[in-house]
Amino acid sequence: MTSFNAFTPPARLLLGPGPSPVSPRVLAALAQPTIGHLDPAFVGLMDEIKALLRTAFRTENEMTLPLSGPGSVGMEACVINLIEPGDAVVVCQNGVFGGRMAEVVRRCGGQPIVVESPWGRAVDIERVEAALRAHPRARALGFVHAETSTGARSDAEALARLARAHDCLTIVDAVTSLGGSPLEVDAWDLDAVYSGSQKCLSCVPGLSPVTFSARAMQTIAQRQHPVQSWFLDMGMLASYWQGDGGRSYHHTAPINALYALHEALRVVVDEGLPAAWERHREQHLALIAGLEQLGVSPVVPASERLCQLNCVSIPPGVDEADVRRRLLLDHGIEIGAGLGALAGKVWRIGLMGHGCRAENVERFLTALAGTLDRAGN
Amino acid sequence: MTSFNAFTPPARLLLGPGPSPVSPRVLAALAQPTIGHLDPAFVGLMDEIKALLRTAFRTENEMTLPLSGPGSVGMEACVINLIEPGDAVVVCQNGVFGGRMAEVVRRCGGQPIVVESPWGRAVDIERVEAALRAHPRARALGFVHAETSTGARSDAEALARLARAHDCLTIVDAVTSLGGSPLEVDAWDLDAVYSGSQKCLSCVPGLSPVTFSARAMQTIAQRQHPVQSWFLDMGMLASYWQGDGGRSYHHTAPINALYALHEALRVVVDEGLPAAWERHREQHLALIAGLEQLGVSPVVPASERLCQLNCVSIPPGVDEADVRRRLLLDHGIEIGAGLGALAGKVWRIGLMGHGCRAENVERFLTALAGTLDRAGN
Repeated sequence: MTSFNAFTPPARLLLGPGPSPVSPRVLAALAQPTIGHLDPAFVGLMDEIKALLRTAFRTENEMTLPLSGPGSVGMEACVINLIEPGDAVVVCQNGVFGGRMAEVVRRCGGQPIVVESPWGRAVDIERVEAALRAHPRARALGFVHAETSTGARSDAEALARLARAHDCLTIVDAVTSLGGSPLEVDAWDLDAVYSGSQKCLSCVPGLSPVTFSARAMQTIAQRQHPVQSWFLDMGMLASYWQGDGGRSYHHTAPINALYALHEALRVVVDEGLPAAWERHREQHLALIAGLEQLGVSPVVPASERLCQLNCVSIPPGVDEADVRRRLLLDHGIEIGAGLGALAGKVWRIGLMGHGCRAENVERFLTALAGTLDRAGN
Repeated sequence: MTSFNAFTPPARLLLGPGPSPVSPRVLAALAQPTIGHLDPAFVGLMDEIKALLRTAFRTENEMTLPLSGPGSVGMEACVINLIEPGDAVVVCQNGVFGGRMAEVVRRCGGQPIVVESPWGRAVDIERVEAALRAHPRARALGFVHAETSTGARSDAEALARLARAHDCLTIVDAVTSLGGSPLEVDAWDLDAVYSGSQKCLSCVPGLSPVTFSARAMQTIAQRQHPVQSWFLDMGMLASYWQGDGGRSYHHTAPINALYALHEALRVVVDEGLPAAWERHREQHLALIAGLEQLGVSPVVPASERLCQLNCVSIPPGVDEADVRRRLLLDHGIEIGAGLGALAGKVWRIGLMGHGCRAENVERFLTALAGTLDRAGN
């Protein structure tokens, strides 16, 4: 029989695109003894998590809950529940995740109409408007609010207004925005929004908070075809999460991860969203100022930058992978590489949730300065 | 803003159909600090988990890994990767989970041919053979090895032999069997097998170990249609989990849950599978003997009983829900209710993994005796 030693993770400061650092209080909640998913105490916890998620998403949507899988499960759930075979969907692509959404639309029999914007820029509103005019029967507009692959923030409010004017539902990737930058599900009238636990909520990875508007749920109720996934059928998930005594068994929820999410959301709500957004903005400004002094510049124009995920160009002559390796092995700091069109060209520096603190910015800048210095020798 | 107190789970002894009790050493592993999913240390952990799962599944299959979701995700992954639109699949139903598999087949465009056997009995081999003869073009045979809803164990070896004789792949639900009763993926020549982390492995819920034979992977490679789910496309998951330096980003793995799975598998491998199977058998016999003394009898004939999940009839005149409630609230012991056709008629008593111990059997029998006694007053 194969056996191995117990695993002890190395000490790391997570300043990449996620997971972000998980606070000791969230890890302690995670490690509490497992109870049954039908236990009355657990049903009560599920209700609290739904309420906390509504606060975080700024919504009154009844259908607000964490899916038992990572952010890509959230994307898939939103698309396959709203879209039926043959439906046209305008999908905005300005990075990796818009492209993934188009692929998910294709795989469930929908017809993605891809509107491209440059990587590192916000979604181009005029191009989207042209596409919506050209495809008057499109059912939905899908876009990424905070592109984790490029650090660009798109104008979700304007995009949603446009979608509404063209009688389209919105499918919104808020994986990296939830908890880190303003996201107003009700005020902006968004329909199906998904996020991830391991970004600005600073929970462990593996859960995908989602919220669906009443309009989205009505669309689902009127489907002509069953949702292709049994596991992600929101109608059945609604019964599992409703918690009013009529709760019906669907799957076994990831109990311990939900303990952690409850605690992570308590942290977010206790700080207050506006305070959290401001903290992310302040540390972002400090980071950018420090990077500019080292000759490292952001990829995204200032007005379109995310605060929680900073995409910066590699200075000329620097071996980008070697710098990341030295930051990790010599300093215990993880930052992210470029993805897709930006692979090899950028670093992605995350200041998310619990990790977004002045001391981390300073520690990173010092480590980077030393590493670039040695690389220059 | 809505806020709530920190959540503290009540003390529970989990003797239901899962989750099973998670040992303190697995909870401690779970709570270690989160690191990045592309960290070299984490990539090494993934390789160890694959090797440990091969030991647990008794297979050399290269494609052996934990999916980032519960057991129902494993079911869906096995079905939708092997089955293409229009494919006929013989699905054995002798409880809730066979019915679920038929539904998953239907939703991905397959044609389930459902072979029913009585609830509480093993799958009827002769009926399956007749169905395979009647449908010579069937692509696969799907069945549940250990029916969690009834406590019946089917003869996976004989069913797989039959499938092979009719040139069918096998899709095998081993959610409750893995680690608790003999399961021989290679010796029985099974093709696509899925399990869950929260049964006899006694890990936290939320992961689904799966293994695919070379024959299954070849079938996937020759598909005419893309797999309908981006998240569960085994071709892409293979690249994410291959760990040979060519590893490509797919989704963010549930890092902490995988720490826990690694530790839970170390426990299983250190004890040794034959010893674990024997322990489950011994405690099962002790439980049944004690229950018979209380006038409580098993539903399943002795030769078809699972050791890890004991389905028993409610004695006449007993309020089954009230007994469960009192066991939970007065004694801190969780057992399961009946599901589907057995709802209201049975209790399901799990002795799984870390929970399968003499002291738990005694504690449960004492509590049940007292509760039935009071109910009889």
